[in-house]
Amino acid sequence: MSTLAIDAMGGDFAPESIIQGVNLAKSEFPDLDFQIFGDAEKIKSLLTDEKNVTIVPTTEVIDFHDDPVKSIKKKKDSSMIRAIQAVKTGEADAVLSAGSTGAFLTAGVLLVGRLKKIERPGLLSTLPTTDGRGFDMLDLGANAENKAEHLRDFAIMGSFYASHVRGIDKPRVGLLSNGSEESKGNPTTKAAHALLSELTDINFIGNIEARDIPLGGCDVAVADGFTGNVVLKQYEGMGKLFMGKLKGLFLGSPLGWLSALPAAPGLLKMKKQMDYKEYGGAPLLGINGVVIKAHGSSDAKAVFHAIRQAKACVEGQVAQSIKEGLKR
Amino acid sequence: MSTLAIDAMGGDFAPESIIQGVNLAKSEFPDLDFQIFGDAEKIKSLLTDEKNVTIVPTTEVIDFHDDPVKSIKKKKDSSMIRAIQAVKTGEADAVLSAGSTGAFLTAGVLLVGRLKKIERPGLLSTLPTTDGRGFDMLDLGANAENKAEHLRDFAIMGSFYASHVRGIDKPRVGLLSNGSEESKGNPTTKAAHALLSELTDINFIGNIEARDIPLGGCDVAVADGFTGNVVLKQYEGMGKLFMGKLKGLFLGSPLGWLSALPAAPGLLKMKKQMDYKEYGGAPLLGINGVVIKAHGSSDAKAVFHAIRQAKACVEGQVAQSIKEGLKR
Repeated sequence: MSTLAIDAMGGDFAPESIIQGVNLAKSEFPDLDFQIFGDAEKIKSLLTDEKNVTIVPTTEVIDFHDDPVKSIKKKKDSSMIRAIQAVKTGEADAVLSAGSTGAFLTAGVLLVGRLKKIERPGLLSTLPTTDGRGFDMLDLGANAENKAEHLRDFAIMGSFYASHVRGIDKPRVGLLSNGSEESKGNPTTKAAHALLSELTDINFIGNIEARDIPLGGCDVAVADGFTGNVVLKQYEGMGKLFMGKLKGLFLGSPLGWLSALPAAPGLLKMKKQMDYKEYGGAPLLGINGVVIKAHGSSDAKAVFHAIRQAKACVEGQVAQSIKEGLKR
Repeated sequence: MSTLAIDAMGGDFAPESIIQGVNLAKSEFPDLDFQIFGDAEKIKSLLTDEKNVTIVPTTEVIDFHDDPVKSIKKKKDSSMIRAIQAVKTGEADAVLSAGSTGAFLTAGVLLVGRLKKIERPGLLSTLPTTDGRGFDMLDLGANAENKAEHLRDFAIMGSFYASHVRGIDKPRVGLLSNGSEESKGNPTTKAAHALLSELTDINFIGNIEARDIPLGGCDVAVADGFTGNVVLKQYEGMGKLFMGKLKGLFLGSPLGWLSALPAAPGLLKMKKQMDYKEYGGAPLLGINGVVIKAHGSSDAKAVFHAIRQAKACVEGQVAQSIKEGLKR
């Protein structure tokens, strides 16, 4: 039985959405154990029942204003730090938080520790594609700058994640660049291209352009943390742009309302497919355990999907398989 | 009267779409003169009439397989190089091509020449926002790598373009980064942030995230050529992703057809608003003349919009105003 450590107090709608997400997960996955860190009274009142749940009372909360590095030292009894400690000590197999990204990633790396040979852990997320299959992208912003060697490590870790957690056979790994030809790229991606071409145990398909990734051009897209973060946020922005346009189109006129009625179920399905929160949270790869960042604005469903993903990461033995893979 | 040099032979649908675009522009802008370079027979047969038109026969075509740098020297009688030469010699005020981006940009810089003080010209385009106003972004890929000083120059040039060509008062200039806080960014954007903060004649609003630009968060977004190219191509890819989803939704079932009928005009309008080709071509800023790259897959309407934009650039005296601005 896997045990998940949950930071109940992090996120825009915490603790409500977090505990509601746990409630959903409890009924779907009766084989999961939960350690929930935070305000014990509130947590109790929100839980449907306490089966398979251990509530760990904590007295502090790290919020978005706190300095990431300082808060780790200063707020030792925060729900986030205590939850991460549970993975460090082995009491829990995975930790999940929707709180401050900076603090969570910094504490994840410092407390849980990097895998040997991994200089820079990377943040991964699964993003939507036209065929509904999705693709994995990393690094999404754990780093502001990367060297070619980091990109190589991201490719290896992303490939393991896609195969072990998402069950994709020989995941097609693409290197995000400004052209598909080998000659394209900035100095870092060109050097990374050369490193990736030498690897035999991943299916490197070369450079990939940003226009091809939403169309399913690869299973894993590799980028430095700055560029990956830009792509992730553009996904968000363009999703809002399109859904806003659609809303205006359908709800802005009587004719629009008329067409919205029969289209409504399809539109809602589309909205769901385009919502990257449906695809789970963002695992931090390259560290000695399963650390999953849920989006700050996660609702109960998003928390549920992130828990499902944490379970898959534990069962797929992501950290171990990356460690084994790196030995080769 | 302004004179435009047109490369009739560049682009996926050349010369047909190019000359059809010229025909549209001729009836809309009777005050424009055209010098059209390419296969004289074909051009003649496609033109509605030859008023205000000079056809310049050329014997060669640079295509997408040609090496950009070599083709400039090797194909001196190509429609593209001859059209660019017309701007260099002062016979034309602007040049437009939908041909090979690499060759066109390289030849534009080498033949027309850089403005004093501009180390790296930048490619700009106007992209869609939710409010239909659009924003300008540069560099979109004239460079694969940039220094902070280049980003500063892009900001100045983009600001001049937005005010002189698009008529925007005090354009809000944002620096694309991985966070809105001043402390965010990679080393290059951090250094650029400091340089931009010192400028008094542009309205620098600080860092901007990719999620905010489609929502109208700035009028000019500044990025290095690698990142800008990624953002541009993601616009394309996500446009296809959403329009593909919508198509499936409306045309995939009888219920969908039913709702598509009343929604059709609005959907077509939305498709148009989201199509960045409607916003014109991409001017190369920082050189001694007006050089506009139209998208390779431009149809007649896209060519028309690029011609309209070339006219606005000439009349707005973009190159001169940037030159004047840089003196200050």
